[in-house]
Amino acid sequence: MKQGRVTITTRRTMELVDITSSLHHDIAQAGCGPGLCHISSPHTTAGITINEGADPAVARDIIAGLKKIVPLDYPFEHGEGNSAAHIMTSLTGISVQLFYDGGSFQLGTWQRIFFCEFDGPRTRGVRWLMVEERP
Amino acid sequence: MKQGRVTITTRRTMELVDITSSLHHDIAQAGCGPGLCHISSPHTTAGITINEGADPAVARDIIAGLKKIVPLDYPFEHGEGNSAAHIMTSLTGISVQLFYDGGSFQLGTWQRIFFCEFDGPRTRGVRWLMVEERP
Amino acid sequence: MKQGRVTITTRRTMELVDITSSLHHDIAQAGCGPGLCHISSPHTTAGITINEGADPAVARDIIAGLKKIVPLDYPFEHGEGNSAAHIMTSLTGISVQLFYDGGSFQLGTWQRIFFCEFDGPRTRGVRWLMVEERP
Repeated sequence: MKQGRVTITTRRTMELVDITSSLHHDIAQAGCGPGLCHISSPHTTAGITINEGADPAVARDIIAGLKKIVPLDYPFEHGEGNSAAHIMTSLTGISVQLFYDGGSFQLGTWQRIFFCEFDGPRTRGVRWLMVEERP
Repeated sequence: MKQGRVTITTRRTMELVDITSSLHHDIAQAGCGPGLCHISSPHTTAGITINEGADPAVARDIIAGLKKIVPLDYPFEHGEGNSAAHIMTSLTGISVQLFYDGGSFQLGTWQRIFFCEFDGPRTRGVRWLMVEERP
Repeated sequence: MKQGRVTITTRRTMELVDITSSLHHDIAQAGCGPGLCHISSPHTTAGITINEGADPAVARDIIAGLKKIVPLDYPFEHGEGNSAAHIMTSLTGISVQLFYDGGSFQLGTWQRIFFCEFDGPRTRGVRWLMVEERP
C-alpha cells in the first residue's frame, strides 16, 4: 500500500477546491499501479466530496446551499465559533474511495474531487492511500 | 479486482431505488469470491445510500426530508436549475463499501442499498469493484 | 481479511459516542497488521462519523445542529415515528474507512470515530473489517 499527501492552501472561509489534478500528479510520482485509492482529510472542519467540476458555479452553489442548510448562528456550545463547520464536515464526510488505473481515477464524465474548506482560509493537507491490485 | 456495472432506469424526478438485488445478481455472474465491494455512482446529481428497505415509506420519507432540508428555489448560479440535486448528492455521498461473502453483501437486518435519483427520470449506471480476499 | 464487532450501549435518544478506543482494543486483540480498515454500522437509524473529540461540546453541537436541520415533526409516512433518524443516517453515512498501523488508526490530531445514535437508547453494534497489507 503506497501513501502520500498533498498540500492545499485555501483562500476563503468556505470554498470547494478541485484537487483532482494534484492527486493525479502525486500518485503518478509515487509510481502506483491500478488499485482502489482512499482519499481523506485529517481535519475536522473540512471534508472531501465528489461533484461536478465542469461549471465552477456548482461548487459555489454547494457552499451557498450548505450555508442555508446548516444554522450558522445557532447558540452552539463549542467555544471556537466554528460548530457549523464541524457539522458540514459530518454532512459531506471526510473521505472518498476511487478506482485508479492508467494514471487517473475512474470518475464519471462530470465528476471531480473537491476539498471542502469550511473554516478557512488555512493551509490544509489531504492524504491518499493506494490498495494496489496484485499482478 | 473484478468490476462491473448495473443500469438503472429511474421514473421520477427524485426517488430512492433499491439496487441490492441487481448488484447481487451482477456480482454473482462475475464469479466473485469474498471481498470488500466498492459501489459508486459516476453521476453528479445522484447518490448512493444504505437505509431501511423493509417499509418502502422510509425511502419516500428520505426524499421528502431532503426536499425540506435543501433549498430548491434558492437563487443558485448554475444555469441548469439542478443545484439542489448537486447538493443532495454531496449530502448522501456517491459511494458505499460493503463486505461481500457467499453470494450476498453483509448488510444489517433492515439495510438495503439505494440509488438516489435527484434529477430524473433518467437512465443511470452504478459501478462496483471487488477487492477479493486472497486464498 | 480479519473481522470483528464491538457493542455499544447508548443512553440518549440522540448522541455521538466516541468508539475509537473500543475499536483499537478489539482490533489489537485480533492481531491485525497494517491495512485499510472498514468500519460500519448495520443499523438504519444510526451512523458513523469522524469529527473532533477533544472538546465534547462539538459532538453535542453536531446533534443540536442535526435536530435543527432535519424536520423532526414533518408529516412522514413511516409509521414508527423515526423517519428523522433514518434521514440523519443517510446524511452522516453508516461507514468510514481508515488506515491502521502500529496499533492505531491514522487519524488527524483532533479526529475521533463516533457512533451516531439517532433513535436510542439502545444496544448497538459496529463491525470492522481489515484489508491487511501483504508482507
